[in-house]
Amino acid sequence: MNAAAAAPAALLDPDGVRASVDAVLYAFLDEQERAATDLPEIGLFTKMLRTMLAAGGKRIRPFLCVTGWAAITDRTPPPAVWRVAASLELFHAFALIHDDIMDKSDTRRGRPTAHRALAARHAHHPDADTLGVNTAILLGDLALGWSYELLHADDRRIHRTWKLLNALRTETLIGQYLDLAATGDLTAGTDTAWRIIRYKTGKYTIERPLHLGAAPADADPAQLRSLSAYAIPLGEAFQLRDDLLGVYGDPARTGKSTLDDLREGKHTVLVATALERATPAQRRTLHSALGDPSLDPTAAEAVRGIFSATGAAAAVEQMITDRLHAAERALDGSTLREPATTALNRLAAAMAHRAS
Amino acid sequence: MNAAAAAPAALLDPDGVRASVDAVLYAFLDEQERAATDLPEIGLFTKMLRTMLAAGGKRIRPFLCVTGWAAITDRTPPPAVWRVAASLELFHAFALIHDDIMDKSDTRRGRPTAHRALAARHAHHPDADTLGVNTAILLGDLALGWSYELLHADDRRIHRTWKLLNALRTETLIGQYLDLAATGDLTAGTDTAWRIIRYKTGKYTIERPLHLGAAPADADPAQLRSLSAYAIPLGEAFQLRDDLLGVYGDPARTGKSTLDDLREGKHTVLVATALERATPAQRRTLHSALGDPSLDPTAAEAVRGIFSATGAAAAVEQMITDRLHAAERALDGSTLREPATTALNRLAAAMAHRAS
Repeated sequence: MNAAAAAPAALLDPDGVRASVDAVLYAFLDEQERAATDLPEIGLFTKMLRTMLAAGGKRIRPFLCVTGWAAITDRTPPPAVWRVAASLELFHAFALIHDDIMDKSDTRRGRPTAHRALAARHAHHPDADTLGVNTAILLGDLALGWSYELLHADDRRIHRTWKLLNALRTETLIGQYLDLAATGDLTAGTDTAWRIIRYKTGKYTIERPLHLGAAPADADPAQLRSLSAYAIPLGEAFQLRDDLLGVYGDPARTGKSTLDDLREGKHTVLVATALERATPAQRRTLHSALGDPSLDPTAAEAVRGIFSATGAAAAVEQMITDRLHAAERALDGSTLREPATTALNRLAAAMAHRAS
Repeated sequence: MNAAAAAPAALLDPDGVRASVDAVLYAFLDEQERAATDLPEIGLFTKMLRTMLAAGGKRIRPFLCVTGWAAITDRTPPPAVWRVAASLELFHAFALIHDDIMDKSDTRRGRPTAHRALAARHAHHPDADTLGVNTAILLGDLALGWSYELLHADDRRIHRTWKLLNALRTETLIGQYLDLAATGDLTAGTDTAWRIIRYKTGKYTIERPLHLGAAPADADPAQLRSLSAYAIPLGEAFQLRDDLLGVYGDPARTGKSTLDDLREGKHTVLVATALERATPAQRRTLHSALGDPSLDPTAAEAVRGIFSATGAAAAVEQMITDRLHAAERALDGSTLREPATTALNRLAAAMAHRAS
């Protein structure tokens, strides 16, 4: 942050403000990439933001922010003011991305808007336009979240909580992206299905919330690991049950039709397992049925027949049982305290065996 | 926050957690409504969130957060843990709203999803479905932003900055909503056009950034008022120039066609002024041309003719001059310092007279 030490006159040079603010933004994006080592897809999002920042824009809000400081005092602005300035620019990137979606704009500053650029990147996808818009909604959401994160990186009091929350947001939004990109794409394997479960359910719904309570209570690293060892398999069990209920559940109890997931071509472990075990004829049936928006109850019954005949449905039931036991063992072998562990065991059983 | 004083056993009662977390959330939504007294439209958004929260949901993330605390210690969780728990629930509301848009889901828990409910509320609008989706994107954005705000309401060190930033986000997103709702609705008067300018340009682009720099520099209230008195008219001048450029500008310099705003039926002060001054025949021409997606250059020329004949274009030029002078007077009569005031005067002239 060179400009933090600049003289007042240089401080009000628009090019200097731009350079200083961009340095903060690029360093922040680097940091987000480093923090999300197991989510390489983050690169798609950070690259889009870098491209947008490099494409232009006057940095008028950061300039005014620094000028507002200089209008009051000769003192050198502290780093916090530069971070606020950079945060404004990131918030503005978010606003442009979502505005262009709402306005259905194809170009901005002579270049494709984010949702159009993202549609072009997914040209192989059967509905690239929709995927482009949806990915751009997520890109905007990330930029919005980061505009807050940028402001609070220095706040020690809630530092541990804040980092966890940021991880939660990143994982959730990118998990949603993985899900969008995989839905309708039957070539994605079980690895992708497991990663989606890990980020959208295991971490978002279970592990991160537990850590967010445990960290401010001064949990030691082993305790945090025990909570993770409970959370991740339970998240998998929860989602595997969800996938079974989506195909075999009682609509009166689940509140959703047993045709929706099949029509949508939802990429589940159940589907991936069945495809792996299917005969060529069964595979052809699955490929023509899954993702067919007009799939009828007879075709759905044929798909269920293949899920049973291949043993995929029974395999998924066994996976749920294994994961429930793994979650229980994680608590047994831990220094976590009663009555919380009893509450967590009860919750695990309810999540794995629910009928709705 | 009654549960903050609850005994450990009661702490792990899901209904108790739900009641405590909901109390934090409802109080927070009340607070947002009170803080946005001049934006009554916020009620549409807070009401949607209250309805979603009341409709159900297991509050599993807040429950796990509190349980994570109890797994480590017998101590009573501090209010910060309850705020984190509530923040998780608000973040989840955001995620559901945006997910339902991306998945094109019509119902959730047996009720219309946010974008469907919002489309139904705007049934009078020519494109209610799109408006419903776009408003739901904004609703999700607000919930996302508030999930951060909720966490930091008690942080005194950056309290002034944080409140300003929250105001900026709220005003920007609701300004965008006003714009979406007014576009294509020629019955909206000049009052609406001025409010859109105030929130989308005057405050977002100029006033809030200036205040965000000035507040941490210990600006006194008179200095903040001087910055506002500069910002609001300048924002108006900037937007009025934008509206003129959208109809009369040189596409080679502005980078956009002079047909787009007319085809979109963009609700500008120029349009509203022309409609107010038009003869019945002119008004009929404007009503048939504005918002017509196939408007051709000949019809656009007829519209420009009416903007001139009614004196609307000249009136808007005069409004720009008046507002530039008002911005300059605000700096002259202030205790704001050089060289910032010179930089601000230069910027004002450039914004009001720009050709691109």
